[in-house]
Parts: sequence; structure tokens; C-alpha cells
Amino acid sequence: MRVAFAQMNTTVGAIAANTDHIIARIAEARQAGAQLVLFPELAISGYPPMDLLDQPHFIDLNLQALQRIREATTGITAIVGFIDRNNSNQGKRLFNAAAVLQNQELRSVHYKTLLPTYDVFDEERYFESAPMVSVIELFGKRVGITICEDLWNDSDFWTHRLYQDDPVEQLAKQGMEMLINISASPFHVGKPALRMQMVQSLARKHGVPALYVNQVGGNDSLVFDGHSFCANAEGEITWLGAGFQEQFAILDLPLAPLVEPAALAPDMAMIEDALVLGVRDYLHKSGFRSVVLGLSGGIDSAITAAIAAKALGPDQVLGVAMPSQYSSEGSVTDAVALAKNLGIQYQEIPIKPMFDAFCQSLAPAFAGRAEDVTEENLQARIRGNLLMALSNKFGHLLLTTGNKSEMAVGYCTLYGDMCGGLAVISDLPKTWVYALAEYMNRHAEVIPRNTIDKPPSAELRPDQKDQDTLPPYEVLDAILMAYIEEQKSAAEIAALGYELETVQWVIRRINLNEYKRRQAPPGLKVTRKAFGPGRRYPIARGYDS
Amino acid sequence: MRVAFAQMNTTVGAIAANTDHIIARIAEARQAGAQLVLFPELAISGYPPMDLLDQPHFIDLNLQALQRIREATTGITAIVGFIDRNNSNQGKRLFNAAAVLQNQELRSVHYKTLLPTYDVFDEERYFESAPMVSVIELFGKRVGITICEDLWNDSDFWTHRLYQDDPVEQLAKQGMEMLINISASPFHVGKPALRMQMVQSLARKHGVPALYVNQVGGNDSLVFDGHSFCANAEGEITWLGAGFQEQFAILDLPLAPLVEPAALAPDMAMIEDALVLGVRDYLHKSGFRSVVLGLSGGIDSAITAAIAAKALGPDQVLGVAMPSQYSSEGSVTDAVALAKNLGIQYQEIPIKPMFDAFCQSLAPAFAGRAEDVTEENLQARIRGNLLMALSNKFGHLLLTTGNKSEMAVGYCTLYGDMCGGLAVISDLPKTWVYALAEYMNRHAEVIPRNTIDKPPSAELRPDQKDQDTLPPYEVLDAILMAYIEEQKSAAEIAALGYELETVQWVIRRINLNEYKRRQAPPGLKVTRKAFGPGRRYPIARGYDS
Repeated sequence: MRVAFAQMNTTVGAIAANTDHIIARIAEARQAGAQLVLFPELAISGYPPMDLLDQPHFIDLNLQALQRIREATTGITAIVGFIDRNNSNQGKRLFNAAAVLQNQELRSVHYKTLLPTYDVFDEERYFESAPMVSVIELFGKRVGITICEDLWNDSDFWTHRLYQDDPVEQLAKQGMEMLINISASPFHVGKPALRMQMVQSLARKHGVPALYVNQVGGNDSLVFDGHSFCANAEGEITWLGAGFQEQFAILDLPLAPLVEPAALAPDMAMIEDALVLGVRDYLHKSGFRSVVLGLSGGIDSAITAAIAAKALGPDQVLGVAMPSQYSSEGSVTDAVALAKNLGIQYQEIPIKPMFDAFCQSLAPAFAGRAEDVTEENLQARIRGNLLMALSNKFGHLLLTTGNKSEMAVGYCTLYGDMCGGLAVISDLPKTWVYALAEYMNRHAEVIPRNTIDKPPSAELRPDQKDQDTLPPYEVLDAILMAYIEEQKSAAEIAALGYELETVQWVIRRINLNEYKRRQAPPGLKVTRKAFGPGRRYPIARGYDS
Repeated sequence: MRVAFAQMNTTVGAIAANTDHIIARIAEARQAGAQLVLFPELAISGYPPMDLLDQPHFIDLNLQALQRIREATTGITAIVGFIDRNNSNQGKRLFNAAAVLQNQELRSVHYKTLLPTYDVFDEERYFESAPMVSVIELFGKRVGITICEDLWNDSDFWTHRLYQDDPVEQLAKQGMEMLINISASPFHVGKPALRMQMVQSLARKHGVPALYVNQVGGNDSLVFDGHSFCANAEGEITWLGAGFQEQFAILDLPLAPLVEPAALAPDMAMIEDALVLGVRDYLHKSGFRSVVLGLSGGIDSAITAAIAAKALGPDQVLGVAMPSQYSSEGSVTDAVALAKNLGIQYQEIPIKPMFDAFCQSLAPAFAGRAEDVTEENLQARIRGNLLMALSNKFGHLLLTTGNKSEMAVGYCTLYGDMCGGLAVISDLPKTWVYALAEYMNRHAEVIPRNTIDKPPSAELRPDQKDQDTLPPYEVLDAILMAYIEEQKSAAEIAALGYELETVQWVIRRINLNEYKRRQAPPGLKVTRKAFGPGRRYPIARGYDS
């Protein structure tokens, strides 16, 4: 059986373009002699369509597109994710659906049963759960067609099951001989491996081969990593698709198990790929070609610039150094060295004239008050204003450069260094930023050595160092992980060996700074729990532990 | 039967304070001879607790608080909303629950069946639906205890039902003789009337009296309006509680129907009350006492200042005029008149020195380029920076003043006039802003007449008027309503009598400016569909209709 896997990069809402792509791949599959071609979950609309789903006109266009695709399936079978209407007068108005299109006919429609509604997912907001599931006979085999989360509720794989139903179990009871899953499963570190292990376990348990096709590409905060694959009935991986790129693979099934166990790239390689893809897709899908960013000489802006240069080409990146009276000499020399290493454009605009003008204009209002964080924020906001002016004048998207540790405790200035359309590394704890810098320097110096080695500083007052204000980053990041990803309380974190006072200080800062993060630009998710739409906290509240 | 209604203002997460309040009200009810006292949905945690629900420690504290409350119910019965654990190894880990506490005992626990997951609601994210519902015998009556949304699925009231189940119907089948509902139902225009009509219809249909108690107060974007009430078995309103304020009412039921039909305040009165309460609670619940805002002499900043003065007292409000070379004389004189009308503090800081410094510093980079929107944004961002400096130095919260029409089409500057911690009127279309100004002026001039009468202008370039760029506000607002609230397509809106080109321009602008709104501060919701957490759109996307 010859099967084509269309691991495609959809643009959310671009129904015509996505449909054209699907139809082109169907033609290509037919030409290659494939009997079956698989597309990801909601391939027509792109995933996640979010509240576009509330617009009846959008649903109509997607249904019309499905008809266009159906007409293109002469002599071949395609499985395509689309949005179907729930025509009952009860329940949510839509289904997350997979169509089996065969030789210009709609053979069957399969609805998603398990609707993820946690972290970044909101599917219960839109979709009704499948009232039932049925195997379908395809090419003489009883095939179970499932959509993404439908696989994620196996009683043997999970100690706590999030749902009552298990559609895979139900399909198995109907004599399923092959399991197909069409997904739009976003990346975080560890997810590609988890996904494979889980499907391997299901294939083994039910004694059926499994075909898994995933979306790829960046859609706002989410990066879909692809990594489509096949497992045989023994749960062995027989094919593993590419990570972080489109792929159109034509396979003759069954394949022999891979001789070497399927090798996923190391974490830092995946993170780099995810960020590069996330930046490129965010820019291109929203109509930008080029970026501007502030270069402080520090490691965060250096990594961000390096990722942007990889994503867009160095000539599409403008780095701007904006030294102040508190800037070290290294802040400019390191920025220059970085720009040279990367081959990006570079400019310098000292901020003193603006800073002096602000201080003079505010002097009457500030009379008798000491200098404080106000003057630090003023500098950061002057820089934000300069960068936005360059963005407005030349049409570059401004990238922000803050890391997750800073964003967590609010060690950043709202409307200052937080200005920008995309936060490239806002889900990378500072310790990971260092690890990524070393990884990116593995062949040659990309990030200047001095940038990595010098103690981190915001340089907003004389001799300022991050560690004057913050705990050491190894400690801070460990506390953040325990609190944000593992939902531990202060007492539980202290019991891991951290000073209770430090833990409480960090937690308090995280909570106090929710208001800043609420106004942050979208950031690319790479951890299990990122700030942003996957972590929803009240601002005005009375709970700090 | 003497029943106390505790229409309380919870602070989200303030478990200890909310619990103290609940216990004090129980004592007060006992003293007044009440047999039963009712508290709102999730009264212990406050609503909506959002992802605080993901922290096991938070759930523990709420369960401990429930025990404290139980111990306080000597000689009385209390119904209190709390978070219960789902101890099964399947399904979401929590229930949205109501405890019946009677004479220091936990008589029964009732779970919410219908979990709103649309607009601003995310309950499927956290809660498992009640596996079953049961009437409970209280004071010789079979009582049906329901939580908020449980009422909202009646087959006679709605043509499309959002859920399969109807817990009220199930309770009626069990011989329910009285219906109690504890709610946390947020305000939008029209909601208080709809809510009453719906409960009246249920009471009549099932021939039972209904007791409805609602939360009151502002929690971030949401303002809960209170308006608790009783209906008799004929569906007549026998008591209507206050709107937009805490109330502790002790009633001897059954009461006679109100002689006059229950009168809700007119829309503009409710909007004013909602905004005042929303501002006050946002400030106080997040630890602020005072605000600063920019005064342009225009109607938006005037209304915002007037609301803030009502919410916090005029001496807690600082208005700042920041004239530029493009400012009309009226911009300052109208701001001065407003400050005088309201009795608020007033300052002036001209922005020319900063603007000149920016232009000079950017001159090399901008060489050969014409002036454009960049220079307009620079001015707005200088103002934002000045206001934030005053906020930082003096601890005032900065209020933003943009209206919904501007926010929709992006007629506002990110990091400029969009700076601030709370957007007071960002859900008010411009035509409503005018209506509210007239309403607030009904007894005496609060908003200066000239501010209302002059043509609106951003004053960022010579002789600029809003209507040079935007369609007339009556047209713009009608298109916005049709697109945002009614989910109509461009063609459908044009069919209402608007120029298709204008409609398409507006829709395109709405979509293009999603990136700005994503970085906007929380805004107080007063319409059925507000920007913010209730409207979730992708930024990078390929759909513009």
C-alpha cells in the first residue's frame, strides 16, 4: 500500500492557499502512484483557527473548499481535516472533523471525540464531541481514523485520564486493523518523544500499525514540529518524518522497522529549529520580511539576532545599539562583534539627548524626589520608542529580546524593552539561553565569547548587575520550573532545598508582574508551560502563594 | 421562611478575606433570625479564579476555608460556592460546587452540570461536569440547588441549546419545590434583564419559586452586577436586589409580587455604575489608590477622568495635559475646564523638547524619508513615557482612555496612548461615549460642552480630524456591531445598507490591528462581545473577511 504523508505548513485562516496546497499534493500523490494521501487536522483552515470559528462565513468557505478538494480526488483517497457543522439544535455548533474523500466522493466523515481544553487549547469552546466513532473499510482493512487528542487517553499509558471516553479503545473493539491519526500537535521540549512513545504503546497494545501525520510551522505562539511517523503492529517505528519543515513523503507500507532506533535531535537543536521556524512563519504569515531589534551587547539580544538572521537572512535584520551614560564600553563593542559575526545591519543611536529632555521636562513634577526605578524605565522606554520609530519608518517588525526568567519576575520594562511584535526567547529560561548560545557556537563563534562570559546586566544604573536584584539564575530557574510547570507551593519548593524567603520573593514577583506579561507580545512556546495564552492568571487578586 | 442573600464582592484568590466575610455574614444572618443564608458561586475563591485552579495548594486552602465556614453554621443553614476535588482517576480534577452547611455539618454537595466555555468563560478547562443532580430536602421543601449556567439551557427559552443536559429539568422531575441558584454572572448591557426574564420563565414553567444570588464587583475585565432577586411560582419578581454594590438582604419568603414591575436602571446608568465599580475594584484589589491619565481636551479622556473621579474621589486623580505644536488651543483650555469641573489634580508638560530630541537623533537614520505616521506615533509614545514616569514615581496607576471604535480599527498608538494598567472605556463604541457624556451631564456640566461639541481629533498633525481617516462614527459603530457582536460577513453587512468598500476597509483594519489589541491593558467589558479574553483571534493569518 503506497501512502503519501503531507506534513504541511498551514496558515491559519488562509483557506484558499491551504486548499490549493492540498489539491497540489493530491495530484502529486496520484502521479507517484499513491492510493492514500494524509493531511493534518483542520488542514483546510489551519490550526488553531481560534474565534474565526465563530464566523459562519468562515465555516462556509471551509465547506466549499472541502468540495473543491473532493473533486480533485479522482483515482485516489485523501483524508483531510476540516470543520463540519453540527446540524442538531443542541450542543456546540461545530465538529472538528476528518473527511475520507475517495474518487470524487465523500466516503465518510469522522469527528474528534476528545477535545483538549487546557494549556493553550480551547476546543470545548467551539466543538461538540463525536457522538460515536466507527471504523471504515479502506483497501480491505478496517481503519480507525482519529484526530490528534483522540490518542491521548489510554488507560495503560496515563495514571490519570482526562476524559471518560477512549475512542481508540472503541475502535479496537470494532476490529480496527490500522490506526490513522491526523494531528496539529504543537512543540515543546520532550513532546516529540512523548508522542512517539505513546503511539508506539497504542500500536503494540492493539496490535495494529499506526500512521501519524502532523502539521508543521509556526502559528503565532505555537510552533508545530511535524515529526510525522509510522509504527508497525509491534510498536516499532518504521518511518520518522522531518522535524520543523514541510515534507511530502511517499511510503510503501508496511516498511521494515528502522535499523537504528528513530533518532530525534537533541533538545537545543530542536529549540533552535523551533525558534527559527517560529520567527520566519510569524513574519511571513503576517506580511513582514525584515526585523529590527535593540542590541545591548548582552546574550539575550545576541541570541535573538542570531535566530532572526537564520530565519530571515542577515540582510533582513537591523541591530541597533542605543548606549546611555551607564552603558559599559563592552555593550557597544560586543554588539558590533555580534553584528559582524552575523553579517546583519547595524546602527548606533545614543539616548542621552532624549533622556536629558525627559529629565528636564519632568523636573518640576519630580522636585524633591530621589532618583529611583523611574529613571531606569525612562531609558528603556526611550529605546523602545526609537526602535518603534525605525519599525514604523522602514516596515521592520520589532523583535523583543527578553527571556523567560526576566519575564517571570518582571525584570523588564513595560513599553521599554518589552516593545515588539514577537518575543523570540520569552519562553527560554536564562540558563537555557546560555546553553543555546554554546550550542549555536558549536562549530564557530556566532555569539561573541565576551557576551557569554560577562556577568549579565541591564545597565540602567552605574555598575548594575542582574544578580544585585535577582537570585543566581540556576536557583531562579529551578524555582520557576517548580512553580510554573510543576504547580508546587512555596513550602514544597523550599523542601527541595531552596531558601523559603527566596522562594516566596520569586513567587510574589511572578504574581505581581502578571500585569506586564498581559501586555507582552506573543512569545514562541518551547516549554511545557509558557506564559501567554496557555497560562491564564488574574491580575487583581489576593493570592500570592 | 427567613432567607438572607449575601450579594458579596469577592476578591479573586483572597481566600482568607472572602472566608472572613462569609463567616461574618453567617453570624449576622443568625442574629437576624434567618434560617438560610445564600452566597454566590465560588464565593470562597472568588470568580473567576482562572489558572489559580491549577495549583493544588490553592484548592487545599479553599477546602480548609470550607471547614472554617462549616464550623460557623451553628443553628443556621448556609449555601456556599467552593471548589471540590474530583477524586476519580478520570476527567478534569475539579468540580465547581455548592455546599449545604447546616448546624456545623456538611449536609450535601451539589456540582455544576453546565460549564460555560465560550466568550470570557473557560470552565471546561478546569471542571468536570456533575455526574448527576439531586434535590435536597430543606425546611420541609424539595429544593433544587443549581450553579449559574445550570439555568441557561431551557428548551422553551432557547431555540438553540448549547448543552445536551438540562439540570433544572432533571430536578423538576425529582419533584423540586424551590429552585436556588448561586451565580457569578458578569454584566453586559441587557444581561440583567435577560437573566431575570429567563429565571421568571423557569419559575413559571416548573411552578416553583426561584431564589437567585449573584456575585458583585469588578474582577479584572469583568464587572459582576449583583441584581440578585426572587421570583414566585407564577414567575413574578418579588424582590430585586441592588445593582453594582454589595448587599446583605434578609427576606421573609414568600413575598408578595412587587407592585411596580421590577425596574432596572437605564443602560447608560448601568454602564456608568459598571465602569465606576470596575475602576474602583481593579485599583483597590491590586493595591492602588490613585490614578494618572493624559487629558487631551477630548471626550474619551474626559469621560475616563470623570469615571475615575467618581470611583476614587477627585483628589486621587491626576490629569496631565501634554500639548504639542499640533495641539489646538482648546486642547488645553478644555482639559483645564474638565479638571475644574471634576476637582481633580492637573499638570501640564509640553512635549516639544522630547520630540525635537527624538527627531534630531533619528535624523541620520531617516535621511531622505518623508514625514509619515512615524512622527505621529513618536508624539503619542513620548506622552506614554511621561505618564508612565509619573506613574512610576508617584505610584499612580495609569489609565488608558481609548474607546472601542478606535481599538477596533487601530486608531491608537501602541506604547503611546495605549499605555496603562486599565482601559476604562475600551468596550464603549464612540457613539456610546457621547451618549454617556450626555447622561453624566444630565444634572450639571461634568464633561465640558466644548469637549462634546467639537469634532474629534487625535491632534498629531496639523488640522487632523478623526473623520479624515475613519468613516462617520455612526457608520463605523454599526459596522463594528454587525461584525464583532453579530459575526456577519462583509457581504451581509453591506446588505444592511453600508458601502461594501467601507465595510471591507473596516473589517480589514479590525483584523490587521489584532496585534495592537493583544498588547492592550485589560478593559472593562460592557458589551456582549468585548475585545480581550472573550474574543480570541490569531494574529498571523490569511483571512480578512
